[in-house]
Amino acid sequence: MERIVMKFGGTSVANEERIERAASLILKEVEQGKQVAVVVSAMGKTTDQLLALAGEIHPNATSRELDMLLTTGEQVTASLLAMAITAKGIEARSFTGWQAGIQTDSIHSKARIEEVKAGKVIATLNKGGVAVITGFQGVDGTGEITTLGRGGSDTSAVAVAIAIEAARCDIYTDVEGVFTTDPRMIKNASKLIEISYDEMLELANLGAGVLHPRAIEFAKNHQMPLRVRPAHIEGMGTVIKEEVEMESNLIVRGVAFEEDIVRITIMYDTPYNGSLANIFTALAGEQVNVDIIVQTIMEGEQPSVSFSIKNEDFAKTMNVLEVNKAELGYKRADFEVGLAKVSIVGSGMVSNPGVAANMFDALRLASIPIKMVSTSEIKVSVVIPTTHMEEAVAVLHNTFALEQIS
Amino acid sequence: MERIVMKFGGTSVANEERIERAASLILKEVEQGKQVAVVVSAMGKTTDQLLALAGEIHPNATSRELDMLLTTGEQVTASLLAMAITAKGIEARSFTGWQAGIQTDSIHSKARIEEVKAGKVIATLNKGGVAVITGFQGVDGTGEITTLGRGGSDTSAVAVAIAIEAARCDIYTDVEGVFTTDPRMIKNASKLIEISYDEMLELANLGAGVLHPRAIEFAKNHQMPLRVRPAHIEGMGTVIKEEVEMESNLIVRGVAFEEDIVRITIMYDTPYNGSLANIFTALAGEQVNVDIIVQTIMEGEQPSVSFSIKNEDFAKTMNVLEVNKAELGYKRADFEVGLAKVSIVGSGMVSNPGVAANMFDALRLASIPIKMVSTSEIKVSVVIPTTHMEEAVAVLHNTFALEQIS
Repeated sequence: MERIVMKFGGTSVANEERIERAASLILKEVEQGKQVAVVVSAMGKTTDQLLALAGEIHPNATSRELDMLLTTGEQVTASLLAMAITAKGIEARSFTGWQAGIQTDSIHSKARIEEVKAGKVIATLNKGGVAVITGFQGVDGTGEITTLGRGGSDTSAVAVAIAIEAARCDIYTDVEGVFTTDPRMIKNASKLIEISYDEMLELANLGAGVLHPRAIEFAKNHQMPLRVRPAHIEGMGTVIKEEVEMESNLIVRGVAFEEDIVRITIMYDTPYNGSLANIFTALAGEQVNVDIIVQTIMEGEQPSVSFSIKNEDFAKTMNVLEVNKAELGYKRADFEVGLAKVSIVGSGMVSNPGVAANMFDALRLASIPIKMVSTSEIKVSVVIPTTHMEEAVAVLHNTFALEQIS
Repeated sequence: MERIVMKFGGTSVANEERIERAASLILKEVEQGKQVAVVVSAMGKTTDQLLALAGEIHPNATSRELDMLLTTGEQVTASLLAMAITAKGIEARSFTGWQAGIQTDSIHSKARIEEVKAGKVIATLNKGGVAVITGFQGVDGTGEITTLGRGGSDTSAVAVAIAIEAARCDIYTDVEGVFTTDPRMIKNASKLIEISYDEMLELANLGAGVLHPRAIEFAKNHQMPLRVRPAHIEGMGTVIKEEVEMESNLIVRGVAFEEDIVRITIMYDTPYNGSLANIFTALAGEQVNVDIIVQTIMEGEQPSVSFSIKNEDFAKTMNVLEVNKAELGYKRADFEVGLAKVSIVGSGMVSNPGVAANMFDALRLASIPIKMVSTSEIKVSVVIPTTHMEEAVAVLHNTFALEQIS
């Protein structure tokens, strides 16, 4: 009998009504002869509310105690959803992370799953029951309750799917699936039927929300097919798997974008002397995420290096540069704010060398200035002024005929 | 180093402010050189709110799932209180029931504690930390989460106190201690400094709230001294232990009362033929709690039996009598509503035979009619009209000079 995992995020279980709806979706799968394990997040804003409560009591509570506090959120959802399923005449049992055998390392608030001992879950499935498992949490080797950090519930779902040898893992969410770009911005954005793990990873890392990169990587490593699908309406969503049917005209499958980018440029008056690595080591030491790095060493000119960061890391970055100026040995540091990153993503690019050129051409024709460029095998990103972001997305969506994907 | 258990009920941890106050009380004990284990209930009305939520989703949810749901309540309190203690500069760790080693049988919603494997709790105490343990809950032999039912948190506290060999178990509550009678009714009621387990059991069973009989029995069986004390104000409360210092004039230590009593009288026209047991078996089968039973068999008269029940069981009782009339073989059943039970309690009664007579005399002088009487070694109860209840309590409190206890 085929097993599947169904994962419901916080908005999909935010109140009684949505919990009922989730139960109906589960019922439908059971009626189709599936064995169903469910993974749930905390209801709606529960986690934020618990964090606020903790903040009032101790602004710097230990991550161990925060884990003890926050894990109650999923436990509430799991038991309520189990009740809702039982009310529809199907046996259901809820399981906390430790009961479901989700074993993690001991790093509170960002634990990694080491193993899922799914014996109890499988026993429930084999008896025809639905197992409802708390996402986001596990237990370490000494019986301490841990949480998995951001994207934790998606990761839990994938881990459970792998452990019970599920045919696939359905991630229910409040969007219809994965789109060629954000449909709230570009009206004719199309929903993708399929997308590869790597493409999805790029889109996820570029801020296209929906699924956490960590869960995608995990699924990719175990070749577990994922499906992102809507909980609030009917819809088959988007399947994420290794190999994707690829028509010749679908070289680019999505346009991602991200605001609040800052470009920092550092100029030296002497030739490059190894201090480049020092800069990024110093920034990494302060948890600054550096994205695009562009280095120019031109004969006869002063060497310089540019890199992009998120706005939120701006002050920290300038401080690191200031404090380490002598050691880093640069002459001058410049910055430019008000930038955005726009990227095209598609597995087909690797065998179609003209794609980047098409992108630059299209942006040039629209008089959109390009500040930085970065390319990978399945992605080309440009940094441009934020004022041009929406236009750039529309132009690229059009250029690569993404409204025709269906 | 002396160990103690401090237990805080729902009202004593109902909000951040009260959690802070509980943390201060704990700090004070630690500063006095005590090793402190804390047992907590869910915050304020949390349990009721969770039950309401469950009720909307499934009016008859399994007790297993209700246990999964409700146990989150204490977990929230435990982690927040641990944070509050840590904020005051003392290490604290929260423990769920299963983490604290509270092992129970498998009867969900009214599990009984079988063993407390307190190794982790003791390790925390020995390192100078405070262990904050969720009350009301445990885990069975197969890893299922259980709850202990009514009075559960008090019972958890006593069980932990026994397991860690605490010198005493302090139950923090919203009253100043145990009083000679309800101070809200009788203004000159006195707080008792000490009371014996047995006296407290009688008072608790008679509805004097404060502590659950189950916890008192548990403490008595292990000779664990309890102290009921206020969380909201300074005060030493009342110590409950085996042997209590007893002055000659303190034969009676408390007056308890209870409203909503119904007296049922069943009359036979043939001599008693064994059906008496049948009545109470039938009632027990329907979970009707019968309290006082009075049987009269007088030469030449029709035999009859009277018993008292709570108002809430009235309809059920009448139904049992109706349905089983033929089998029970009685002639007529009468009832009287609007009754109350008033009791005097004191270990000294057993050696002072005049006490009951004094009680009846005092009530007779006040023209209070007595409908039923029941006596035990440390208690005399009378059933009287509710309209006379307050007066009877005042008269008895005065007769036995309880305002002089201090």
